[in-house]
Amino acid sequence: MNSFGQLLRFTSFGESHGTAIGGVLDGFPSGVHIDEGFVKSEMRRRRPGQSAITTQRNEQDEVHFLSGIFEGRSTGAPIAFVIVNSNNRSADYDNMRDLFRPSHADFVYETKYGIRDHRGGGRSSARETAVRVCAGALAKLALKQLGITVDAYTSQVGALALDKDYRLYDLAQTESNAVRCPDGAMAVEMENLIKETKRKGDTVGGVVTCVAKGVPAGLGEPLYGKLSASLAAAMLSINAVKGFEYGNGFDAASGFGSQQNDIFYSNCGRIATQTNNSGGIQGGISNGNDIYFRVAFKPVATLLMEQPTVTRDGTETTLLAKGRHDPCVVPRAVPVVEAMAALVLLDHCMLDRAGKVFRV
Amino acid sequence: MNSFGQLLRFTSFGESHGTAIGGVLDGFPSGVHIDEGFVKSEMRRRRPGQSAITTQRNEQDEVHFLSGIFEGRSTGAPIAFVIVNSNNRSADYDNMRDLFRPSHADFVYETKYGIRDHRGGGRSSARETAVRVCAGALAKLALKQLGITVDAYTSQVGALALDKDYRLYDLAQTESNAVRCPDGAMAVEMENLIKETKRKGDTVGGVVTCVAKGVPAGLGEPLYGKLSASLAAAMLSINAVKGFEYGNGFDAASGFGSQQNDIFYSNCGRIATQTNNSGGIQGGISNGNDIYFRVAFKPVATLLMEQPTVTRDGTETTLLAKGRHDPCVVPRAVPVVEAMAALVLLDHCMLDRAGKVFRV
Amino acid sequence: MNSFGQLLRFTSFGESHGTAIGGVLDGFPSGVHIDEGFVKSEMRRRRPGQSAITTQRNEQDEVHFLSGIFEGRSTGAPIAFVIVNSNNRSADYDNMRDLFRPSHADFVYETKYGIRDHRGGGRSSARETAVRVCAGALAKLALKQLGITVDAYTSQVGALALDKDYRLYDLAQTESNAVRCPDGAMAVEMENLIKETKRKGDTVGGVVTCVAKGVPAGLGEPLYGKLSASLAAAMLSINAVKGFEYGNGFDAASGFGSQQNDIFYSNCGRIATQTNNSGGIQGGISNGNDIYFRVAFKPVATLLMEQPTVTRDGTETTLLAKGRHDPCVVPRAVPVVEAMAALVLLDHCMLDRAGKVFRV
Amino acid sequence: MNSFGQLLRFTSFGESHGTAIGGVLDGFPSGVHIDEGFVKSEMRRRRPGQSAITTQRNEQDEVHFLSGIFEGRSTGAPIAFVIVNSNNRSADYDNMRDLFRPSHADFVYETKYGIRDHRGGGRSSARETAVRVCAGALAKLALKQLGITVDAYTSQVGALALDKDYRLYDLAQTESNAVRCPDGAMAVEMENLIKETKRKGDTVGGVVTCVAKGVPAGLGEPLYGKLSASLAAAMLSINAVKGFEYGNGFDAASGFGSQQNDIFYSNCGRIATQTNNSGGIQGGISNGNDIYFRVAFKPVATLLMEQPTVTRDGTETTLLAKGRHDPCVVPRAVPVVEAMAALVLLDHCMLDRAGKVFRV
Repeated sequence: MNSFGQLLRFTSFGESHGTAIGGVLDGFPSGVHIDEGFVKSEMRRRRPGQSAITTQRNEQDEVHFLSGIFEGRSTGAPIAFVIVNSNNRSADYDNMRDLFRPSHADFVYETKYGIRDHRGGGRSSARETAVRVCAGALAKLALKQLGITVDAYTSQVGALALDKDYRLYDLAQTESNAVRCPDGAMAVEMENLIKETKRKGDTVGGVVTCVAKGVPAGLGEPLYGKLSASLAAAMLSINAVKGFEYGNGFDAASGFGSQQNDIFYSNCGRIATQTNNSGGIQGGISNGNDIYFRVAFKPVATLLMEQPTVTRDGTETTLLAKGRHDPCVVPRAVPVVEAMAALVLLDHCMLDRAGKVFRV
Repeated sequence: MNSFGQLLRFTSFGESHGTAIGGVLDGFPSGVHIDEGFVKSEMRRRRPGQSAITTQRNEQDEVHFLSGIFEGRSTGAPIAFVIVNSNNRSADYDNMRDLFRPSHADFVYETKYGIRDHRGGGRSSARETAVRVCAGALAKLALKQLGITVDAYTSQVGALALDKDYRLYDLAQTESNAVRCPDGAMAVEMENLIKETKRKGDTVGGVVTCVAKGVPAGLGEPLYGKLSASLAAAMLSINAVKGFEYGNGFDAASGFGSQQNDIFYSNCGRIATQTNNSGGIQGGISNGNDIYFRVAFKPVATLLMEQPTVTRDGTETTLLAKGRHDPCVVPRAVPVVEAMAALVLLDHCMLDRAGKVFRV
Repeated sequence: MNSFGQLLRFTSFGESHGTAIGGVLDGFPSGVHIDEGFVKSEMRRRRPGQSAITTQRNEQDEVHFLSGIFEGRSTGAPIAFVIVNSNNRSADYDNMRDLFRPSHADFVYETKYGIRDHRGGGRSSARETAVRVCAGALAKLALKQLGITVDAYTSQVGALALDKDYRLYDLAQTESNAVRCPDGAMAVEMENLIKETKRKGDTVGGVVTCVAKGVPAGLGEPLYGKLSASLAAAMLSINAVKGFEYGNGFDAASGFGSQQNDIFYSNCGRIATQTNNSGGIQGGISNGNDIYFRVAFKPVATLLMEQPTVTRDGTETTLLAKGRHDPCVVPRAVPVVEAMAALVLLDHCMLDRAGKVFRV
Repeated sequence: MNSFGQLLRFTSFGESHGTAIGGVLDGFPSGVHIDEGFVKSEMRRRRPGQSAITTQRNEQDEVHFLSGIFEGRSTGAPIAFVIVNSNNRSADYDNMRDLFRPSHADFVYETKYGIRDHRGGGRSSARETAVRVCAGALAKLALKQLGITVDAYTSQVGALALDKDYRLYDLAQTESNAVRCPDGAMAVEMENLIKETKRKGDTVGGVVTCVAKGVPAGLGEPLYGKLSASLAAAMLSINAVKGFEYGNGFDAASGFGSQQNDIFYSNCGRIATQTNNSGGIQGGISNGNDIYFRVAFKPVATLLMEQPTVTRDGTETTLLAKGRHDPCVVPRAVPVVEAMAALVLLDHCMLDRAGKVFRV
């Protein structure tokens, strides 16, 4: 099940150490100007080797579009693209052919499929997220025409967490540092933590916060196609994600309705709410406010320290990973979260429009 | 989009104050003995009016099966069922025809569809969850044949939260108190908090924890049909849910890989893990360990105290809800969470089996 | 897989001799006036016992709507409805419990599911088509607002076949005779053939031709959601259908391109075609011309004469069916073909609209 | 909607004169030996320029697999592949930029999408069927392990039609002539007709008959996922197809039940039927007999003679096509029909297996 979305249908393929990875974006609206420069800049945000705190695998991640674009605009036909894997070092993984890395997908893939491409995690590698970013870049180009923007940032690394609401940060600062935290002072601390963690051969988790602005009221298809449910599924489909919450999320559980209800008022005749604890989604449908949510990432499972494990036949052994790995996935996950959110939002724009068949 | 699932496809219909609610469960395996007594007992766990801490709307919630069952067993044909709405008091909602209840779906439904059944929230009412429980009961009957069980419990009400791992509670105690908390002392505190909240006309949120045991390794369809993503979407489709996490969830974000990796070892030749921080899911696929996750519910939006709001044309007004409402949705949400989890798991059993077309 | 459609999703349930049959129409646009009188009149066109040439099972086929309609208009919520089975004579089928009727679905259902409701064919009975007609009536009400009409008629019964193009008949005459043939003289012949066939205890096949007018250019989602493919699947989902062709269909195979191409010309500035061999569909997409297609029905498999067959354990025996059956399914299939076509067309209107998210 | 199938999900991309065409086959079972030699031989059967009676566009149609295969076997991950377009002569189509070819998809694509890749028909070109053949070859490899074979042949070209049942031909002879007709004498006549037609700059239609053997009873998901409906949709998704019939098809319409019912008998204890008018499918489910069906193709719309037409703005003009085109599409359509049938059958094997979750 390597496809995602209802009307905007994204299919991804490829393994970490195969010939290429790529994707097909089907259902993309026709007539959208495909700004390849923007696609490139989005790819660079996720690219390995972009800074001292990411993996040193050096992939240019150049996107080759194969179809669906004619004279610079989308045609309504499926947009296919490939990204060649150029910087494989498959030999780094030879010792993983017969053993299972702790907290990796090796064991379950072997159990489910009876066969496993062990090189770099094969299909289960986070390398696949590159194709999500490309598809998401296209979705962002379409959303832009509808006045919708999607911006994410690193809000937590290990125990270092931003403690304020997203409205209190200048999100234009997110890209000003390697860790993608809009608070400059915190960014320095986070970066130091990641470097320190890397030095130990360890890894650390974190949280990405994402904000979508300009989303019109009415997106979301109740009851089982709620916008919140679509976003949750999208985020949980990203490697290493362990949790999702929108609006005040888990904090909502500890409070009272009298504190948390978003009270309506009339803002110069336009219906608005005094607060946005709902995170822009009520009953699964967008209400015109900013949509915001948080995504929890576990620490990368591959450590550069020796760990005990077992081989395929159950023999106990130890593993010292080679390969090149991120000590913290969160900075590079920021554009991935945005990409998945953009795909969800564009899909829901189309779903909502479909129901309005009588309203020109 | 009132259907859910891939191969086990559940479709739900009905409004809070319409003639009836109901559902169609399609793709259900043939030959399963349909124990109607079990269905009844599950319905009673969600039934309104079941205790002093729930809404006093008095619905018997008797399920009438219309199809798909022959001589007590499922036939493979769609199983349809209806539950008649008998205890409507639609007049309680007359004052809501033209105004929008804060933090309810009234506003977004009206915006999206241009028309709204205002009586009891219409389609957006949590009354719909009754049909989920019925469908879930059928799924549980099938899962039982595969040795899989699903049990949820109340782990938090407002600020009162269980602080231990699910393995340290006796889940057989969950049904021994009205709040469905397996810790008897905490249950009393929670119940008091709910009663106190109700007295004030207020509402309070909470958390449900769910545990599935006996799930074989291999369930989950990477990359976009991950078991974790399916569970997340299922939970976010439930009214009032604001967050989902599995395994160590958001806590994973604050820790290090060296602490959190689940180390494999050989348990008498069988491959096992020393810990289960992964919550039984690796790379989106079950690994044979217990699956556990947590679901955050916001406080019910309908308060029995006066709140400011606006009418459809933007005029500011106040609302004092009548109707009968839960001061805390969590105790009755426990069977709903189980039901959705059971539907997801059975669907994934079938998906996994489909791929094993060559392995008799 | 008892659902049909992409965005307009129709789910059907029920067995011939169960409590009730019914359906859920999900994704139906909001705000459509639900003319229950029209639904009734459509149901009467398919109703058993309507004339001397149909089965004498006497079902009123009264539709009870359970949801999705508020104050006479659709709300966007799923529209569920049930039709009670009142005139069962299940005992007529007692002798079929352990044997398989020739050319019926008995054998394959038993093989596939390991259990079978033998009463009246259970789920495989054409009784299910009643729910299609109800759903189709709703679709027609919506299509009417878009200026689209769907009309079918009997064009062949046994060897008696209309030999002219649909444009040469007055389709307003279709309902003027029991056989639903717009040519009055042929209708008499067909009716006599059916009566004669019935007298012998035999059954006879036929063809239904269907015409949709007012369909705008642009419906159909290439390459695998072609309008022609959707119509074909819809028609082949109807019991007893053995073939589908649109435009000049199988005749196209025997001719030359120079004869069959539909030549474009300018009709007062509007692009039009001189002929319509394409049946209104080019490359899977509607071109604005009338859409027309033909559907072949085999003779009803249940004969009122003795036939050899086998029992479940392979013993040879004979079967003399009791029950009440149509000697020719075609006259009652006319509204079923229309209904399925209407569902397909409305679904495709919505799909096409979805892609036009940028074009107000 | 460029995907096809439920569990075995095939996505296709690419335009006739773009960089490449290709596909992604998702859900393919793991562990299947991928015989690339077989894939090549299937590709050659559809390849342009293969004989004097096909288009002279000279494409090698070499398939490059990008993913999903590890050490020669399928892994359960999506199998992506590309076929480079090497022999484009886009300039041949310059005169089609602003006009619409009669009975082509040009007009409807422009209407639907507002933009059109005019070179060689862009996405609507039959060149896309190359990727179907590749995907179908993979499906055949899997079906072979289940004992299922799929063989098609040319049964009609223009007015020249085989008049006997498929059982009376030696299908091993199909590949012995360029037209792919198992009857050698008829093959010569057909070939002559095609050559004569080509000489005139005209085109001619035809029929492909397809037979699947070894299909177990039980495939097909009633009521809306019938095997017959899936096959019909698959065939109608192929360019130029105007009709589909299975078993005795349209002939069934003209006959009586007493002649056409397939009578069961006991063949050494195994339940069998005396005839196979049903074409191996009853009630939408395979019954263990051979499945056979016929597919009607219209004449290719591109003629090498002058035709009147209109430009985009409605001006009347004439068109004399350059390009290289098939005078009859049927010989090269034979492997395409097989490929689509193989994809349908494998998908249904998986769907059927999914429902048997309790039966090891």
